[in-house]
Amino acid sequence: MRRAVELAARGLGSTSPNPVVGCVVLNSEGHPVGEGWHQRAGGPHAEVHALAEAGDDARGGTAVVTLEPCDHTGRTGPCSRALIDAGIARVVYAVADPGANGGERTLAGAGIDVERGLLADEAAAVNAAWLTAVRVQRPYVVWKYAASLDGRSAAADGSSRWITSDAARADVHRLRARTDAVIVGSGTARADDPQLAVRGVSGAVQPLRVVIDTAATAVRPGARVLDGTAPTLIAVAQEASTAELGDAAEVLRLPRAEGGRRGLDLTALLEELYGRGVRSVLLEGGPTLAGSFVEEGLVDEVIGYVAPVLLGAGPAALGDAGIAAVAQALRLQMTESVRIGPDLRITAVPAGSARARAAAASPVTASTASHAATEES
Amino acid sequence: MRRAVELAARGLGSTSPNPVVGCVVLNSEGHPVGEGWHQRAGGPHAEVHALAEAGDDARGGTAVVTLEPCDHTGRTGPCSRALIDAGIARVVYAVADPGANGGERTLAGAGIDVERGLLADEAAAVNAAWLTAVRVQRPYVVWKYAASLDGRSAAADGSSRWITSDAARADVHRLRARTDAVIVGSGTARADDPQLAVRGVSGAVQPLRVVIDTAATAVRPGARVLDGTAPTLIAVAQEASTAELGDAAEVLRLPRAEGGRRGLDLTALLEELYGRGVRSVLLEGGPTLAGSFVEEGLVDEVIGYVAPVLLGAGPAALGDAGIAAVAQALRLQMTESVRIGPDLRITAVPAGSARARAAAASPVTASTASHAATEES
Repeated sequence: MRRAVELAARGLGSTSPNPVVGCVVLNSEGHPVGEGWHQRAGGPHAEVHALAEAGDDARGGTAVVTLEPCDHTGRTGPCSRALIDAGIARVVYAVADPGANGGERTLAGAGIDVERGLLADEAAAVNAAWLTAVRVQRPYVVWKYAASLDGRSAAADGSSRWITSDAARADVHRLRARTDAVIVGSGTARADDPQLAVRGVSGAVQPLRVVIDTAATAVRPGARVLDGTAPTLIAVAQEASTAELGDAAEVLRLPRAEGGRRGLDLTALLEELYGRGVRSVLLEGGPTLAGSFVEEGLVDEVIGYVAPVLLGAGPAALGDAGIAAVAQALRLQMTESVRIGPDLRITAVPAGSARARAAAASPVTASTASHAATEES
Repeated sequence: MRRAVELAARGLGSTSPNPVVGCVVLNSEGHPVGEGWHQRAGGPHAEVHALAEAGDDARGGTAVVTLEPCDHTGRTGPCSRALIDAGIARVVYAVADPGANGGERTLAGAGIDVERGLLADEAAAVNAAWLTAVRVQRPYVVWKYAASLDGRSAAADGSSRWITSDAARADVHRLRARTDAVIVGSGTARADDPQLAVRGVSGAVQPLRVVIDTAATAVRPGARVLDGTAPTLIAVAQEASTAELGDAAEVLRLPRAEGGRRGLDLTALLEELYGRGVRSVLLEGGPTLAGSFVEEGLVDEVIGYVAPVLLGAGPAALGDAGIAAVAQALRLQMTESVRIGPDLRITAVPAGSARARAAAASPVTASTASHAATEES
């Protein structure tokens, strides 16, 4: 199953709106004879790949799958049927399908021995974004920031190039490659003119680029985010004039936030993105937008790149989130801290969330620079 | 030698103005027969303790010492003489005495085989504060802060209890116990009324408590810092009126900072403390004072306790340090990141410093929560 989880992870960023799935087929003597993973939406499921590789050796064997095999006929046939037809005698899966498409019953009905729950935490972790998105019916939101040791995302003069290292920035590209959409606010669009594309990751599917530009004043033709590398969506208020933008990008009109909050209705934005098949988003800035997401309880994971640098002045990584006292703070649980070059990458999830409970049950991951260097290569 | 370094570390916080030293004596067959460490200034040196434990078994044996044995007759006799008298045949030491008191020549002159440099980095690290202090003729300064993941040391309403965990706060007491003096500014003294004593560390020597209270307006009789648990020094400007303070604490009058800077002349303060035997200080707050120390290049090590908490508002851990652009940032090198309960303790030293070079030469330390839990016990 550990191998199947590794295989599943290869699909991160290219399978939405589907989950990532990995499968290993063992022959009747328990030797691996086929491997597969779900590579892209519309393509064959992991089981189909693995069964094809196994061929006749699958007969009487075992299929080890990270997610309950599906039972519905979509663009590809049901996996339950494929497993039965291949003569598989036993199916071991890690995590149940949270929808109604699970095929356990069909498999069992065909006399196949079905076992569930092996390495369920690891398998759930690799699919955390998809599982959360399906449960809450909006994309899984990761807020990523880069800051100095004293929590500044830029210096007093606004300069932010470069607080973190080349290695940390390369890691952000890998993060983007595993996500379906990248979101920034108008402040970041105006100050940094970011491209928001994945660079330096071979085979990466470019994420959708989303700029929340409420008044439609930040993005102008010629902006790097409109360079055609990846699709781009400019989210604006319903009454905003987009005349200057012209047809340089798709415009999404959204209601403003309720209750006197700044900006657009973020829940409406996320629902719209979910409807377009987006299951994971990477929130890349800036502090004001991040503050709004935190205030509305829309952050599922925080990934901070902390550089060993002191600034003493300049904007903080996180802006006002409506928190006045320590007692109201958003409490998180660290799930990982790892050296990325000279910097530290800290990952945390809201305390009390399903992911926090899973992290509490399994040992904390802490890795050294040498580990990160390997990851880098 | 690793054992000798462990023994040396036991003296941290109680040997100033002396270094910490550990010694293991092996008999002529290479078996350990005596151990010792320098326990307190004025008390016997490590070698004397170890030789006493070894007795006649030292004859023809080897002394393994973290620092070059001394050659001068102070409150205790020279260690070189004690080693010769005990019949030691070989001395292995890690780090040379940076003063003129080293006894290598005397030992060699008596026919003892002397070897230097074994585990020099580890032995230098345990004595980093003392070695640096002797070299620059002022105490080694560790700036300690506690902050949320987004770099805030308090919430918008000023509340800071508690951002970090019980485990992190207990760790701070261990840090205080290893240091000679603790320094805070008037803002912290006024806002938090801290006691600044070591609590919960058995056998700890209380550090000198220093409040930088330029205008002599923050500390008043009845303040917890004046509770008699440890000596206290109130540093004030030369012209400040200390009538209200009375004789509740010793007052140290210092010139104001030069060049229009806020507060007192920090170099003058550190020189005064050095003259009093202080070799290490722990700078505990607040952001303004820390900014001044950073601006004047007086921070030798940074220890940050980072809690998995988001605040989005409130004072930053580090205040103005005269840094306007990223290019002027104080660049550090992380030497350790370790989980302390739910929090992360990050240690860093200025890039290019002797300690940074030593850290670059040896592998990065990263430990997990379970490690920290062990340390806790």
